[in-house]
Amino acid sequence: MHTPLQTIQTVVPHDFIDLGTGDPQLELLPLDLIREAAAHRLGQPDRDFLQYGTEQGDGFFRAALAQFLSARCGFPVSHDDLFTTSGVSSALSLICTLFTKPGDLILVEEPSYFLALHLFADHGLRVASIRTDESGLVMDDLIHALKESKPKFLYIVPTFQNPSGHTLSQERREQLVELAKRHDFVILADEVYQFLSYTQSPPTSFSAYIDSEHVISLGSFSKILAPGLRLGWLHTHASIMKTIITCGVLDSGGGMNPFTSAIVRSLIESGGLDGNISSLINVLGNRVQITSELLKKHIPQAKFTVPHGGYFFWLQVPGIDAKELRKSAQSNKVDLRPGVLFSSQNQLTDHFRLSISFYDVERIEEGILRLKQCFDK
Amino acid sequence: MHTPLQTIQTVVPHDFIDLGTGDPQLELLPLDLIREAAAHRLGQPDRDFLQYGTEQGDGFFRAALAQFLSARCGFPVSHDDLFTTSGVSSALSLICTLFTKPGDLILVEEPSYFLALHLFADHGLRVASIRTDESGLVMDDLIHALKESKPKFLYIVPTFQNPSGHTLSQERREQLVELAKRHDFVILADEVYQFLSYTQSPPTSFSAYIDSEHVISLGSFSKILAPGLRLGWLHTHASIMKTIITCGVLDSGGGMNPFTSAIVRSLIESGGLDGNISSLINVLGNRVQITSELLKKHIPQAKFTVPHGGYFFWLQVPGIDAKELRKSAQSNKVDLRPGVLFSSQNQLTDHFRLSISFYDVERIEEGILRLKQCFDK
Repeated sequence: MHTPLQTIQTVVPHDFIDLGTGDPQLELLPLDLIREAAAHRLGQPDRDFLQYGTEQGDGFFRAALAQFLSARCGFPVSHDDLFTTSGVSSALSLICTLFTKPGDLILVEEPSYFLALHLFADHGLRVASIRTDESGLVMDDLIHALKESKPKFLYIVPTFQNPSGHTLSQERREQLVELAKRHDFVILADEVYQFLSYTQSPPTSFSAYIDSEHVISLGSFSKILAPGLRLGWLHTHASIMKTIITCGVLDSGGGMNPFTSAIVRSLIESGGLDGNISSLINVLGNRVQITSELLKKHIPQAKFTVPHGGYFFWLQVPGIDAKELRKSAQSNKVDLRPGVLFSSQNQLTDHFRLSISFYDVERIEEGILRLKQCFDK
Repeated sequence: MHTPLQTIQTVVPHDFIDLGTGDPQLELLPLDLIREAAAHRLGQPDRDFLQYGTEQGDGFFRAALAQFLSARCGFPVSHDDLFTTSGVSSALSLICTLFTKPGDLILVEEPSYFLALHLFADHGLRVASIRTDESGLVMDDLIHALKESKPKFLYIVPTFQNPSGHTLSQERREQLVELAKRHDFVILADEVYQFLSYTQSPPTSFSAYIDSEHVISLGSFSKILAPGLRLGWLHTHASIMKTIITCGVLDSGGGMNPFTSAIVRSLIESGGLDGNISSLINVLGNRVQITSELLKKHIPQAKFTVPHGGYFFWLQVPGIDAKELRKSAQSNKVDLRPGVLFSSQNQLTDHFRLSISFYDVERIEEGILRLKQCFDK
């Protein structure tokens, strides 16, 4: 007896609408662009990218990425400060291996991206959480926590947060960097939604603060190209970079993903990445607007702020138990993610996360109508 | 000031001959095959491999790999027991994260693949080594060590070992698996040279013993296709597999390398991988034979056994200090790897490693002549 063959991580049955999943819609993954980029790269005689790659990642890929980031960020980003990763999750795991030992303390947001918590647990780390509001991390709570404990890292999704959709304000970013320097912890900024802004540009990414020597900014092609590439980047100061690029796994296996990064280099250089981000912003921005109207109309008891970017609506219906709501929803062939999943304190029981990444507006409307039926019951 | 752009990990100057490096020759990396496979895979409408992939790795890729391995091994390999990795180094790091804690003991061979030792050090592991002879691990020494200590893993390159070229005998393999069961440690078999046999087939890989629940066999496309793909596999029993595929980094990022593995799937299914291995065996087998003759002729004081497969000649010249020899060699624009690099005991000072992977026979001959000059001085 063999298990059936499967490619995709999360397969949703066709008659089911999972408004909870944060995966991108398959049709939004730009197969044509990637085919063209692969044909371009593999059509040249140079085959250096098939060899063990330099530890920091292909310099030509990093140079193309640096140019792309400099244009997006509005300040110069150097390829010398970029490291090629196999995606944010893999980068987080490498960082934990190199900079932590079991029992070390990591601070996270409440709520936080729950799958990162699973990863930290694998490294034996202790996790404490800091409250957030609509402008992100509540600084007084952080200051209080820092009086009582000495964290190694603060893990944060500062822009269009998962799950809340909130963005850390400019003022708090600056305060946070000062605190990191004073208390000697490193800010691990998971900035995968940074370039998906629809109605209001976020503050510049934590890339702006790497000179503090207390910041690692993590980017990814998963949300702006395709998750299956397993490709991302890390932007940090030379003092932190040095520990990363001299580690054992890179010494032995060479840099991450030379083959894929060489193909994506072509895609960046051709302007294909910029074009893809523009069309994603069009499609997803439209979904956010329509979803917001549908939610107000059909589930008026839900409180939420309309996200300015990213994937997520974070809804609160005071008095409900979102885990119970989920059971009722699933029996009505629709799904969501209860807030408790994103809490390291077993709280947020009256919150739930919906995503606009996986379905077009017709299916989102149908899903919301099914959800409405659960509330009406 | 920016650093110059570089793709490859180890760049050797053109007037220099590095007989020590274990990287494959660039011209042996099959760009044409990979271009065709990419065109095939990306020319189809299916884009599932661009999505977050299933944790264990694309089922269709694993099915193609299982068929390839079954034919090579001579016994059935199931895709259910295969896990897709980003290469052996990355797999070793994941295994250390999931199954060890700092201070745990790992046994290795003396000599051993030195870059694995660097990786184990990053995970805070203690390393003890077991002597080897021409039939691999000396079992009496292992039995003695197991009386005094309780290792978590034994890390071993059982076939055409790096650096010695030796192969663990069939009898010792069976003994080793019995010891692993009795003393409850796991054999981490790094079998990247298994399919590169030139004059004598090795015993079947440790894949044959996964039912013991004490074996993880690690394979890779780095030596039979191209290191830049960062793609490999892990073959183990369901009881070990379960811990791996439910870990945090996969939960969050999905399986390793869905994009690259989908392309390599095409390459396996078309028969391209079998063809590539055949031509590698032709080219490299010829190099081993000629190198052996050249060494006997020009450096007669060196003792060695001719390897039956893999990349490496392991030479002993009693009385020399190979680190001193290296200095002299480098000033004569040739290089080698001193034995002490492969020793966790700071021993093997009169040994050195040469490789046939990186140069064609003309350059190997020129390198050996340069080395001869160092001995003649």
